[in-house]
Amino acid sequence: MSSSARGGQGGDGGPFRVGLLGHGTVGGAFSTLLAERADEIERFNGRRPVITGLLTRTQGSFQEILDGAELLVEVIGGIEPAREYLLAAMRSGKDVVTANKQLLSHHGEELFEVAREQDVRLRFEAAVAGAVPVVRLLEESLSATPIESVHGIVNGTTNFILSEMARGSSYPEALAEAQRRGFAEADPSDDVSGRDAAAKMAILARLAFGTPVHLDQVRYEGIEHLQLEDMEYARELGLGLKLIGTAERRGGGLSVRVHPTFLYGGHPLASVSGPFNAVTVESGTITEITMSGPGAGGPGTASAVLGDVVSVMNGGARPPAPPLPLPLVEDVESAYYLHLDVADRPGVLAAVTAVLGEHEVSIRSVVQRGMGERARLVMVTHPVLESGLRAAIERVAEFEFVRSTPRTIRVIEEEFI
Amino acid sequence: MSSSARGGQGGDGGPFRVGLLGHGTVGGAFSTLLAERADEIERFNGRRPVITGLLTRTQGSFQEILDGAELLVEVIGGIEPAREYLLAAMRSGKDVVTANKQLLSHHGEELFEVAREQDVRLRFEAAVAGAVPVVRLLEESLSATPIESVHGIVNGTTNFILSEMARGSSYPEALAEAQRRGFAEADPSDDVSGRDAAAKMAILARLAFGTPVHLDQVRYEGIEHLQLEDMEYARELGLGLKLIGTAERRGGGLSVRVHPTFLYGGHPLASVSGPFNAVTVESGTITEITMSGPGAGGPGTASAVLGDVVSVMNGGARPPAPPLPLPLVEDVESAYYLHLDVADRPGVLAAVTAVLGEHEVSIRSVVQRGMGERARLVMVTHPVLESGLRAAIERVAEFEFVRSTPRTIRVIEEEFI
Repeated sequence: MSSSARGGQGGDGGPFRVGLLGHGTVGGAFSTLLAERADEIERFNGRRPVITGLLTRTQGSFQEILDGAELLVEVIGGIEPAREYLLAAMRSGKDVVTANKQLLSHHGEELFEVAREQDVRLRFEAAVAGAVPVVRLLEESLSATPIESVHGIVNGTTNFILSEMARGSSYPEALAEAQRRGFAEADPSDDVSGRDAAAKMAILARLAFGTPVHLDQVRYEGIEHLQLEDMEYARELGLGLKLIGTAERRGGGLSVRVHPTFLYGGHPLASVSGPFNAVTVESGTITEITMSGPGAGGPGTASAVLGDVVSVMNGGARPPAPPLPLPLVEDVESAYYLHLDVADRPGVLAAVTAVLGEHEVSIRSVVQRGMGERARLVMVTHPVLESGLRAAIERVAEFEFVRSTPRTIRVIEEEFI
Repeated sequence: MSSSARGGQGGDGGPFRVGLLGHGTVGGAFSTLLAERADEIERFNGRRPVITGLLTRTQGSFQEILDGAELLVEVIGGIEPAREYLLAAMRSGKDVVTANKQLLSHHGEELFEVAREQDVRLRFEAAVAGAVPVVRLLEESLSATPIESVHGIVNGTTNFILSEMARGSSYPEALAEAQRRGFAEADPSDDVSGRDAAAKMAILARLAFGTPVHLDQVRYEGIEHLQLEDMEYARELGLGLKLIGTAERRGGGLSVRVHPTFLYGGHPLASVSGPFNAVTVESGTITEITMSGPGAGGPGTASAVLGDVVSVMNGGARPPAPPLPLPLVEDVESAYYLHLDVADRPGVLAAVTAVLGEHEVSIRSVVQRGMGERARLVMVTHPVLESGLRAAIERVAEFEFVRSTPRTIRVIEEEFI
């Protein structure tokens, strides 16, 4: 059997023809990288990748590019016309590579189904965690392993902002610094709201558990409302704050969510700082694997896209597995950090803990600090159902001695070695 | 084109026939895991993996197992007969999966060459970093990227021992604890001498740079001679100690080595504790990617072996690229930690720094501490060629005020974000 037959492209040893849709930051970086690496790829693959057609806003015909290529790379972004182009390409039997998380988190199942029907490959490493090859980890390396949970820092912008806040900047200062250094856009709302991370977690949940997850099914919470004060108290309790995406088996179903989360220092994600991405996958068999690296950005994303192209050239990568739906679970147990602004007088702590106790919220640690007439009461609870915690907090908020809205942030309790 | 044709095994949808050579800890765990995961693998691959033959010390015929299987898994370990079996299997056109680092670090090039000639796949994820899929990272995800360096904690036993020493245990105490908990063997010499890590770095260097590297070409140094005192001083200087394997481009060549190394707290390998493995790969394009997870052990290793089997079933994985030799460089620049036991009297520091200066060893930080009649002089240098540092140390050791043999440990200077 020859290498090229194995490559699955019926190649004759001539150039491997790539059509490129989109020529913005990622597309430009991809063209450059492809040219730089073509010799090396040819050396081990036997075929040389070349861009045989380029579609931009102002030039190129999609149909001509499609006809002339063996594989299409889509880096236009957004839903349409990217969706239409990818479907058309797969329906004419072409393999595709995309970096489009928005499209996959809205129309992933439709795209996967066409890829399966047509037996073509749909690769999207760059859509999830920049240069960190977590798609391949889940699809291939861990395909032999029953996965229990995926926890990820999948948005570099918010991780940079939180790292700055951990060093004492306020949220507005940290955001301004991120914008100045090119880690946040002029309109950062997609990142800081948690929506970008939610789209990536929808994709990761599909990969890890085989369950179709639409972006609308992922609950998310951003970082805009975080107070510097919370980070300071948390530090006293030995906690650091990250925006964590979670997809995990819970009570026969699957929970997929994104929210600010406190981690103990020993957690493998606790030490990931700056505009980085990282994902920890846990399974019974292997305990846990963590991958980290730079988040999305021209060169890193282009490198992931080219990695996908090479993987198709090598004949690797399989069409996506058919879905195996698990019910999505909303109300899950977490430990919580709880911040109360109260009048500084006797009986307050007793009254609060009594209400928490009635709702079976059990307390792991407390910091109380007087500040003149008021006091801060900061607690970390043991794991409790979100519904139970919310009910308890509603009652606590009714006490006349509570001076502002209680704040809660989830905590990952688990301590790793 | 059908999925099975793409699978590269000419399968007819019947079972995928695996021959298993060896049934020790890893072989047993592999059999169990394969049985547990067969349904799930069949669901996405279309074929069901089954073990059609088993060779142990007391049962089975190699030739019969070979004839009946599409792929052989070798978990016997050691050089012979593992080498002979793998060569025979590949020469009869069968794909092979092995977990045998000893064999690959001695005879890798011979095995790779036969795999290329026969156009069969030779997979060995489990040979390098336990359950951490670094082979796949280098072979596939980063195949589009020019790699600059690979740094790894690739021996879980020594990482456990060093983690215990960082918490105040002596080396003999930490080793005993590792043995008690099953992280070190009764005869730990292969691990603590650095030889096991050196074998893995030979394999990683071949993958990352395409250069054939034999175990005998890897310089290594173990952890047996480390003093608790060095770790304590290092902590004052903001450093932590790990056994680090390095493969990196240096001056037009390649340097591959293993030695105890001090890392600054911000380095991604600094926070990897306990019996874990981790590898950081740096390239110009993507700055750096780090993967970490549990080191070798029955279930983790079996999971990596099964991942390789699935990757062959999926038609992925390519025969190894032909070698592209780089010269191996021995004398490289590093920063050094330097520990001197000296008489506590005036002029000692001046005399030492004068000699270092003559050899162009420049000092980054110093701690001096009097202890009665003697003093400890602990320094960290800026990067210097090993030959220069050795020459300087030889001269320093000749001073009559130096009371015991000077100790040196390399330092990775680079600070990450």
